[in-house]
Amino acid sequence: METFDITEHSHRRFNPLLGEWVLVSPHRSKRPWQGQQESAEKETRPQYDPNCYLCPTNVRANGEKNPDYPSTYVFVNDFAALQAESPAGSLQETGSLLRAQSERGICKVICFSPRHDLTLSDMEVSEIRKVVDLWQEQYLELGALEYISYVQIFENKGSVMGSSNPHPHGQIWAQSSVPGEPAKETEQQQAYFQQNGRSLLSDYLAEELEKQTRLVVENEHFVALVPFWAIWPFETIVIPRRHFQHLGQITDQEKDAYADIMKKLSSVYDKLFNTSFPYSAGIHQSPTDGQEYPGWHLHMHFYPPLLRSATVKKFMVGYELMADPQRDITPESAAERLRGLL
Amino acid sequence: METFDITEHSHRRFNPLLGEWVLVSPHRSKRPWQGQQESAEKETRPQYDPNCYLCPTNVRANGEKNPDYPSTYVFVNDFAALQAESPAGSLQETGSLLRAQSERGICKVICFSPRHDLTLSDMEVSEIRKVVDLWQEQYLELGALEYISYVQIFENKGSVMGSSNPHPHGQIWAQSSVPGEPAKETEQQQAYFQQNGRSLLSDYLAEELEKQTRLVVENEHFVALVPFWAIWPFETIVIPRRHFQHLGQITDQEKDAYADIMKKLSSVYDKLFNTSFPYSAGIHQSPTDGQEYPGWHLHMHFYPPLLRSATVKKFMVGYELMADPQRDITPESAAERLRGLL
Ligand SMILES: O=P(O)(O)O[C@H]1O[C@H](CO)[C@@H](O)[C@H](O)[C@H]1O
Ligand SMILES: O=P(O)(O)O[C@H]1O[C@H](CO)[C@@H](O)[C@H](O)[C@H]1O
Repeated sequence: METFDITEHSHRRFNPLLGEWVLVSPHRSKRPWQGQQESAEKETRPQYDPNCYLCPTNVRANGEKNPDYPSTYVFVNDFAALQAESPAGSLQETGSLLRAQSERGICKVICFSPRHDLTLSDMEVSEIRKVVDLWQEQYLELGALEYISYVQIFENKGSVMGSSNPHPHGQIWAQSSVPGEPAKETEQQQAYFQQNGRSLLSDYLAEELEKQTRLVVENEHFVALVPFWAIWPFETIVIPRRHFQHLGQITDQEKDAYADIMKKLSSVYDKLFNTSFPYSAGIHQSPTDGQEYPGWHLHMHFYPPLLRSATVKKFMVGYELMADPQRDITPESAAERLRGLL
Repeated sequence: METFDITEHSHRRFNPLLGEWVLVSPHRSKRPWQGQQESAEKETRPQYDPNCYLCPTNVRANGEKNPDYPSTYVFVNDFAALQAESPAGSLQETGSLLRAQSERGICKVICFSPRHDLTLSDMEVSEIRKVVDLWQEQYLELGALEYISYVQIFENKGSVMGSSNPHPHGQIWAQSSVPGEPAKETEQQQAYFQQNGRSLLSDYLAEELEKQTRLVVENEHFVALVPFWAIWPFETIVIPRRHFQHLGQITDQEKDAYADIMKKLSSVYDKLFNTSFPYSAGIHQSPTDGQEYPGWHLHMHFYPPLLRSATVKKFMVGYELMADPQRDITPESAAERLRGLL
């Protein structure tokens, strides 16, 4: 009888950060694809677009005029999903299964650069460093607000990821509750820390550095790798070597290294399918609800949808929505391909 | 001071089936959309397509020839994500955070009709009834296998939902573990049943039938409604009025009524944006691992991606992937729009 081989046989992998499983079907990558093709991102954009609401000096939907900003620029989202003035309240009758709670918050947009034609991978490390500075500043400022329990910094890059404007930008949604994903990560990391006295991601990183098979790129302070439990075909996680909880604790050198790893990783991504590589990326860090979270270990997720080429993506649909996430190529082979592009 | 109003203010709603929350931002539906547009499904297809691997008498990728089937047809997926012969095994060293387990299973494809040009909404109720019969038969047959703990029946409809072939068909993935979503629903439903002696969905349905605001369409045995905690813009759940655990227990009359509600709901969907409405749909029912699940109440989810028109969908991206699902229009207004098309 054959023996179980994770490079060949269907299996489930456990994600200890979320406490959830992913189904891996290595052999399935041979499947032909006759379905939807995405349009690859158009490559030529002007440095300044008079119709872009994020370019310097342009007027936005609400009538405000952007300043002639030289590096980064942050403002409150004109179509914010969360609002600071939402009145408190809840819906919860005894015995009823209808439960709702008002949610307050602030949604901001962060322009990474005045240049309409750039993405993070085109920017100098020193310019990306200014983005890291702004993330830190915003995390501290928003997190200090009494009613904000969690600050989610993220970027949707590419129209296939729902970004409606190619101007390099990210977002921050800060809110009064801790949302589901960071809540699960809080639980898992705190439990691990209480049991082991070290952070889950420190121990995980040590294992990966030893095994090497899933590493993509690293520098003095950060490592980017394809997690053992990756869901998206070329998903990566960026982990600081030092265990710290949030951007309020990052050192100057680490900020430089953060900018450096962002540059390296996004450049590798762009090379993979020879396109401006789409993804959603986000920083997970400890809640700002006033509690201590010694187990939290800041990290950043990159969830890119592309699977086979610049135009064929992985669909997270029927089985994935109803049952469990599923992937075709193994995390190990994805890491190997990305590493080969360095 | 304003009072909290769920038709106007941002809030979170609780999903008691999963034990999770969704962020609702009613005011955000005014947001303009300049992002990606999907291509609407082409409307004209031949009744028979010589190049379709699902049409009767055609030869599939593996060389097998489809019979000249008159109604439904089921076969093992040629590119199955799960395989019956996977050897048992696991990866789990002491102290290691790398955990994997081999997973056995069977993936099948179900053709709903020999006609290449139809969808469920075009079919007669008597023809859909044959699909329901096949679902039942397959659930019983696969569920009876000793190593199968869960049977997921689903349909990906439309290229935007990753369907690579427009021939009307669905899938079944049966496997040796209970995947995450049904596992969460098992926990929630069993806990509710133990506490209340009634199924969670019986009590929920009673509330919805009284409130009426989220109902879409009903018949003698089934109700389709937009759940209070819906994630997708026009998401619905189809709930049988009678509390039963799985398709092995459905009566003949209920099977007719199931076919009827499928016809009605899919027709309403097609009318909404005047297109062959894309969605992923799936039946959740009790695991087949040999245990008793008195709390389980069979139901079917419809997750359609479209938001504003046949070409503008809701993107579940950055915030949604990193934090919590988020929606713009309220479930109540979605239900009202769907009801208005009856
Ligand atoms: O099996 P299909 O139709 O080829 O593939 C489709 O459905 C599967 C099950 O939801 C997904 O894993 C695939 O990403 C999707 O493209
Ligand atoms: O805020 P944007 O860029 O207009 O919108 C995009 O990102 C949001 C946050 O992930 C999502 O809710 C939207 O569906 C997506 O289109």
